[in-house]
Formats: sequence, structure tokens, C-alpha cells
Amino acid sequence: MRQSTAAALRGALVAPLVALALAVPAALVTAPAEAAPPAQMKTQAPGFYRMALGDFEVTALYDGFVDLDRKLLKGASAEDVQSLLARMFLDNTPGVQTAVNAYLVHTGQNLVLVDAGTAKAFGPNLGFIVDNIRAAGYDPAQVDAVLLTHLHPDHANGLLTPDGKIAFPNAEVRVAKADADFWLSEEIAAKAPADAQAFFKMARNAVAPYVATGKLKPYAEGETLLPGVTVVAEPGHTPGHSGYLFTSKDQSILVWGDLVHSHSVQFARPEIAMEFDVDQTQAIATRKKVFADAAAQKLWVAGAHLPFPGIGHVRTEGNGYAWVPVEYGPIRTDR
Amino acid sequence: MRQSTAAALRGALVAPLVALALAVPAALVTAPAEAAPPAQMKTQAPGFYRMALGDFEVTALYDGFVDLDRKLLKGASAEDVQSLLARMFLDNTPGVQTAVNAYLVHTGQNLVLVDAGTAKAFGPNLGFIVDNIRAAGYDPAQVDAVLLTHLHPDHANGLLTPDGKIAFPNAEVRVAKADADFWLSEEIAAKAPADAQAFFKMARNAVAPYVATGKLKPYAEGETLLPGVTVVAEPGHTPGHSGYLFTSKDQSILVWGDLVHSHSVQFARPEIAMEFDVDQTQAIATRKKVFADAAAQKLWVAGAHLPFPGIGHVRTEGNGYAWVPVEYGPIRTDR
Repeated sequence: MRQSTAAALRGALVAPLVALALAVPAALVTAPAEAAPPAQMKTQAPGFYRMALGDFEVTALYDGFVDLDRKLLKGASAEDVQSLLARMFLDNTPGVQTAVNAYLVHTGQNLVLVDAGTAKAFGPNLGFIVDNIRAAGYDPAQVDAVLLTHLHPDHANGLLTPDGKIAFPNAEVRVAKADADFWLSEEIAAKAPADAQAFFKMARNAVAPYVATGKLKPYAEGETLLPGVTVVAEPGHTPGHSGYLFTSKDQSILVWGDLVHSHSVQFARPEIAMEFDVDQTQAIATRKKVFADAAAQKLWVAGAHLPFPGIGHVRTEGNGYAWVPVEYGPIRTDR
Repeated sequence: MRQSTAAALRGALVAPLVALALAVPAALVTAPAEAAPPAQMKTQAPGFYRMALGDFEVTALYDGFVDLDRKLLKGASAEDVQSLLARMFLDNTPGVQTAVNAYLVHTGQNLVLVDAGTAKAFGPNLGFIVDNIRAAGYDPAQVDAVLLTHLHPDHANGLLTPDGKIAFPNAEVRVAKADADFWLSEEIAAKAPADAQAFFKMARNAVAPYVATGKLKPYAEGETLLPGVTVVAEPGHTPGHSGYLFTSKDQSILVWGDLVHSHSVQFARPEIAMEFDVDQTQAIATRKKVFADAAAQKLWVAGAHLPFPGIGHVRTEGNGYAWVPVEYGPIRTDR
């Protein structure tokens, strides 16, 4: 409605109903259709979301979800954590539903995938990155670079199809040397406790066919990867954990990987760590630094475990921060 | 990753990189594919979102967006409004992008549409309810009841196809008698200023074919409409503005219509009114009451102008309230 209307409407008097229905000839009045209702669909909208970033196009991709036990959050009482979850109306039974997201960025020159999801290593609730790349209109063979934030299985296992083949046949796979040094080292794996070794083994398996064809290229600190992409070192969660800052014209988005595993808890209390962090102290320091930078710069950010699509902004709130998700809408070219 | 792993990983020593890539025979190393990148897609994911509510299924439908000028918000300084918008990283150029949503609820017995969107009366950015009903897997002919929250054009115009035909051929259309009394009255319209009369005319036009076939049935206060549905009077925005409370098992959702036009402003400051409110004072009182009830009861709510899908919860925050959107995910049957 136009702005000028409302005041006018308030001036109009309420009058008795002119019941237009009463004026209808009786012969035209039919009983409502009594057809049986259709079956409930029980399906969800496809797991992708698109936005423009300057001349770039960013597509969030949903891999699925895991239910994380709140006990994985370290450095706060159970009561504090429960209270922060309740504030966001989240259920911890059987665990807090936590998204796994990846991001496909079309820079005009390259089609870049940041993280590759879980494939089918962790059951039927995950492993939908390739399906959602197709739903979003692209083909995995069109991806020419995969940038891994780190070598955990929910980011790297999706490099392979469920039957162990290369999922991105025309892509180079880039990961920070510090992460490759750690997760691909048989020497380190051998010294790790038995129940940790599976994660080293999964990392090695996920990249093995890319290694065999020369397509895995760990990068050193400070190296330039692709036009419009800057590596942001975010150590702590893993030794080489890295974000990728995409910049086009005056817009940037930081795809930050696993800086946050629980949006309801860790924005308000960034000092709360995650059991999966290889170095919790360093991970906390990194989180605080990136939050402060993102809030100060009003930066678009995208997180692998934020509520899908996981794109939004960070603002300061009280002694901590708050998450402001992007709003759904068409890709606009007029603003 | 499993909980038991991280402590183990922290114990592992960082060792020199075993650069597996270096072990690859040179003959296998190929240059990266230099195929031209595909065109950017520039399309958005379909505008529907589904959730289970007890045995009911709720599908949010995106009609499109309007850019609302912040000056339409009444009862706060321009600086206050701008500050609340900036806190949510929202742009007021050319206006604040504001969603128009409708909701399709499958109760098992009925397929109920709450509001019908804008059709094509307000340009190409709106009018996608029928497209999104189809994208969500249903057909407009399967809808057996349309419940209107009120008779504004962005809720009622979609009752007709762009060429003026009935869009929901098997549906009865229900609206509060107080709204029909007001918007369908030629007597009231005649007394309204000239620039307001278009809105009365649009309301009459939108329901005319349903009136002609006896399918428009205004309901009186306290009337029961359908099993599992309760009318919640929310007067102020319009005289008969109404929410619909859907309840299955121990779960309820209040589809509240136009209780909020600016989530960034009116949750924090519910006393800020909207120019379109027919009675701003009454609209403010209604908003405060429904916010208080929704927060106290931890009620699911759905709003026609909240960021799509517009489903979530309300919590108290400071002297006002905050909006907590639902998280995307598949429809779960295990919790």
C-alpha cells in the first residue's frame, strides 16, 4: 500500500457490512469440494542459497546436519550452555541440530568450491553437496578449484564420491600446508591414540586420488591462490585452519570454516571452545580476533556450521557478539 | 568427529610435512583444466520452506518483496530507526527489502492457505505464491480453504490469477466479518479520500468471483472454522485483522499476518507503528499483547512480512523483544 493511504483509511467510518455474498443467486451457491486432501509432501526445499557479491556469485550449499551434544562445548557450565540454547529455542535431544555447509563461488574466472562436505561417511543425514551443486544449476565437473578450510572429514570426505572416485575431476585441491603437514602425516597419526587415527586415515583417503594425479597442492603462508581470493589464517581448530576472503568491487565475504560450531553459544560467549579444536586456546583467540574484525568491518561472513545458508554479519552485543543472518530474496541487480 | 578424538589430537605432535604430492610420478602431473567457466546462474532457490508441526505440515511460501521506506515507521526519530536498521545490516536504499509470505498448512483433513499474496498488481517482484505452491509439490486446486488475515492487496489480490480468474477453484475464502464489513463496503469506500479508494476497490475485485459463487464466507467472532484452527483477533492493522493458531498434538503455530512490518525495528520497539495501520494505537496494543503471549508460551509464529520463511520464535530482550528465526533443515521424524 502507498504511504498516503493509511491516514485516509483511518478517517473512514466503519459501516454495517454490505454482505455481498447475500446478493448471490441461490443457484450459484455450491457446497465446498469434498475431495480427499492430497498426501503431505514431507520434502524440503533444495539446500542451496544464492547471493551476489560485486561481480561474484556466492552459492551456499547444504551438506546436511549432525546432532552435536552440548557437552562438546568447553569452558562453561552445563547450566550456562543450556540457558544459551534455550534462548534460541534449541533442543538438545538427542543433540543440537548443527548444519554442515559448503560454498561455491563463481568469480567470473573460476568456479571455486570451499569445502566439500561429508560424502556418506557419517550416515544418511549428510553428504548432499554434489546433489545441491546440481540443484543450484552447476555440475561438479565445472568446479576448477576446491579450497579446504581444513582436513576434517565433514569438509574433505566429499572430495570423493561414495564409491571412492574423484568427485571434482577438473579441480585442483588447495589446503594450507600446516593442515596437510598435520593430517596427512603417517608419523603424527602413528603417535596419535588409536581412536584418533581414523580421522588421520580419513583425511589421507579423501585426498589420495588427488595426490595420485598431482591435483592436491598445499599452499604456503602468504601464497596467492586465485584472483579475488585471499587466505586468512585461522589456526586453532586445526593447525592450518584457514578462511578464504573473496573480494569483488567493494564487497567481501569471509568463508570462515569452523570458527563457530554453536551459534547460540559461541557468539555470545566466544571464549567457549569446542572439543574438536586441536588447540582450544588458540581457537578461542582466533575466534575473538575474527569476530572483532568482522564486526568492525561489517564484513559478510559464511560459516560451515552456522544455520544454513550460514551467510550473514557479526555485530557486537553486550560483552560478546550476535549473529545476523542474511535475508532470503532474489538476486537483485538494482541495488 | 567423535568427542573422544580432539583431546587425542591435541596430544599428537606436529611433524614435518610428508608432502605426498611430491611422491607422484611427474608423468601423472597434469595442468589444471583451462575450460571456460560456465555462466553464472543468477537464480535463487525456490521460495518455499517446510516444517512439521505435530501431525500437520506447514509450508511457508514466498510471494516476493517490496522496498519499504523507513519513513513509513511512525513513533520514532529517523535516527532511532536508522540505528535499528544498521544493527541488522539493512539497507534503506531505495527502501528496506521486506518479504511478503503466505503459509500453506496441511492438517491431514484440509489443505489451508493463509493469505494469497499479491498476484501481479504491484510489479514483477511479487506474485509468486501459486508458483511456489507448485514448487512445493501441491496444486492450487487442492487448496480447500483460504483464510485471509485481512483484506489488504498483498494478502488478497492473489485470490485471482493475473487475468482475473479464480486461482483456488475448490476453496472457500474466510475472512473476519469486521474486515469484510470495512473493505467491501461501497459506503465506507465512498467516504474515503480518493487515493484510498483503490484499496477498497482492489479488495472488492479480489473477492468478487468468490462472492459470485458463494465461496466468500466472512466469519463472526468466536466462530470455529476448521478442525485444529483457532482464530486470534488482532485488530488495529485493519478492523478485522486476525491470526490463525494451528494446533496439532502439543505443538502450535500462530500465523499472525501483519503484526510486524519491520523485524529490525518493531521487535526491539513494539511501540513503533506502521503508516498502513488503520488504527495505529490499537495495532501497537495488539502487537505488545501477542509478543508477550508468544514469548511466554514459546510459541511458533509465522509472519507475512518477516524475513522468509518468516517462521520462528519471539523472546524478550531488554525492554523489548527479539526475533529468533527457524533453522533450515530436513523435516525430521526422529525428534
